Amino acid sequence: MVLKRVYLDNGATTAMSPEVLSAMSPFLTSHYGNPSSIHFMGEEASAGIRKARGQVASTLNCYPSEITFTSGGTESDNLAILGAMPGTGRKKFITTEIEHSAVLETCPELVRLGFEVVRIGVDRDGLLIMDDLAEAMGPDVGIVSVMAANNVIGTIQDIRQAAEIAHEHGALFHTDAVQAYGKMNLDVKADGIDLLSASGHKIHGPKGVGFLYHRSGIRISPLMVGGGQEAGLRSSTENVPGIVGLGAAAESAVSSMSRDVPSMTKIRDRIIRETLSIEGAYLNGSRDRRICNNAHFGFKGVNGKDLVLRLSDEGIAASAESACSAGSSEPSHVLTAIGRTPQEAMSALRITTSKYTTEEDAEALLEVLPGIIGSLRA
Amino acid sequence: MVLKRVYLDNGATTAMSPEVLSAMSPFLTSHYGNPSSIHFMGEEASAGIRKARGQVASTLNCYPSEITFTSGGTESDNLAILGAMPGTGRKKFITTEIEHSAVLETCPELVRLGFEVVRIGVDRDGLLIMDDLAEAMGPDVGIVSVMAANNVIGTIQDIRQAAEIAHEHGALFHTDAVQAYGKMNLDVKADGIDLLSASGHKIHGPKGVGFLYHRSGIRISPLMVGGGQEAGLRSSTENVPGIVGLGAAAESAVSSMSRDVPSMTKIRDRIIRETLSIEGAYLNGSRDRRICNNAHFGFKGVNGKDLVLRLSDEGIAASAESACSAGSSEPSHVLTAIGRTPQEAMSALRITTSKYTTEEDAEALLEVLPGIIGSLRA
Repeated sequence: MVLKRVYLDNGATTAMSPEVLSAMSPFLTSHYGNPSSIHFMGEEASAGIRKARGQVASTLNCYPSEITFTSGGTESDNLAILGAMPGTGRKKFITTEIEHSAVLETCPELVRLGFEVVRIGVDRDGLLIMDDLAEAMGPDVGIVSVMAANNVIGTIQDIRQAAEIAHEHGALFHTDAVQAYGKMNLDVKADGIDLLSASGHKIHGPKGVGFLYHRSGIRISPLMVGGGQEAGLRSSTENVPGIVGLGAAAESAVSSMSRDVPSMTKIRDRIIRETLSIEGAYLNGSRDRRICNNAHFGFKGVNGKDLVLRLSDEGIAASAESACSAGSSEPSHVLTAIGRTPQEAMSALRITTSKYTTEEDAEALLEVLPGIIGSLRA
Repeated sequence: MVLKRVYLDNGATTAMSPEVLSAMSPFLTSHYGNPSSIHFMGEEASAGIRKARGQVASTLNCYPSEITFTSGGTESDNLAILGAMPGTGRKKFITTEIEHSAVLETCPELVRLGFEVVRIGVDRDGLLIMDDLAEAMGPDVGIVSVMAANNVIGTIQDIRQAAEIAHEHGALFHTDAVQAYGKMNLDVKADGIDLLSASGHKIHGPKGVGFLYHRSGIRISPLMVGGGQEAGLRSSTENVPGIVGLGAAAESAVSSMSRDVPSMTKIRDRIIRETLSIEGAYLNGSRDRRICNNAHFGFKGVNGKDLVLRLSDEGIAASAESACSAGSSEPSHVLTAIGRTPQEAMSALRITTSKYTTEEDAEALLEVLPGIIGSLRA
């Protein structure tokens, strides 16, 4: 029985905020109509979706019609890549070595469909090697997909530069912004983003909902067919409460970014500073070009999974790499891509804060961490 | 401003039941962990999913491992057909003329992928012509897909017989049970069902979640790839509150079926009886082989959409055909398949009750219906 609960795994998922739940609440109870219905209850439901679409669009400087709601970040990534690649009329897809599996796993699918895939490496900080990207480009490249902020080590890519390189060759630029959205300024026009994936549950919104931004005019084939909802791009009765919650979460995350980001950064920096004073501790990823809520460590001679389980016993929720590969006993592809040995890669602790993380949470972690590491080494 | 709200559009979607919302509630607030996380909060979340999977499996007489949670009925249908067809090693897909668009729209996709599609007709009641099915069968048929209960006219098919015919030729049998599940006894073993699709929001559960039952051993390719959740069949962070709600809704629907079905039938029968006393009114679909909550009418000289809008003005939510085609101005493919002329098909009123529908709701409808029809004819 865990009494004290310290949640430092916000890269995996976040607590829904009270204002999000309160925005969803009518749609979980009285406003339960199907948005396709033409009666008053259908209208009520579709008004909720319309509002959410506007909320999301305004956070990215795009049109509401350029937002398609999905079941989450994975579906958004799949729709962006598997859905848009055929329409480019080109045969090559370029991405990086450190993408989320929702992007990387589309690669074998693309190959099966006759496309060619190139994966560009990163440096020791996890930064995309731009020269390699530029060299791989050509008139046959349909989409370049580069994660805005990495889910394991938090490295922020220069997506604007990557987009420029893509556009010089007439390719579309996609970014998986699941970790970045709501914690970084993103402006699809200024940044040159053609396709952007994000998820509700990483920004204190609900699970089971996300969106894809797709610049007007991009041809996308749906992954799911049926009733023609979401302008034919995503058939299925809309997850109205989820979409309403995502809209509220998006608006809230972006509008309070100027307050929340410094606060997350401060606590995260303290965690980095004090953790690095533990003997044999090192930071993975860039010290500076790093998303505000991520700290990712290795500890010589310590298995990351054991560490996470010991922290869990103390009521502290953290992760080794990322939730999506938490069950895996393989070293993280991200950590090996930045040059960590398999042994180093198995010693991983990811601490991810949120706007709800307090100094007390950081203290609770920092209080027990050295002792657990010592005992795991013993 | 509508004060009285009478909801008779339960075929489109249903109100979430208080017990479903209460089962979801911890997962919308404190139990927000990612089920892939190995810490205490991940375990809490995965326990919720485990319970829900067991609840659903026990309603169908199958193993929990045979249930894959999806984002809804459409995804389940798409996964069953587009996902399982390649693995059959056969080239023909057979379905009926009156399926939901989530099944019918997979047909052009299948053709694009090189498969052959055959659509079997129905009689005037909407019952599948079994002789035509038997005749279309052969060793090249991979999947036969027949809806358990129709979403427009409510006709219940003899899926057991259709499954037998499919199995005689070594084909898999899929049923879209979105309308039937929770309102009809379904036993995948006894009924010979290999694949079954259902949705949460049709059974007083949440929107944005559904499931696919797939008999153990059937090869299915995922529609979405990534982190490998749902045993690799459906990558994406699980919609934990939605899944928990679906589990609770499934258990509740099936356990109270013996009480709710007679009550829905009684009110529905009264609506049919009294509505048919209106001059020029007729029933679409079978009088007897009909899902307990569906009444579907035509009225000579009356446009269905106008009728639905007039009812809406009176605070009564109903539909013309089905919510999924509510915006359409084409006559329903279901109504033309049962032999209605296009003109007749445009005169459609679907009344669908739920366990929450009261005699007062029926009275509210029956009180205004003759007058509205009269004035629309005038």
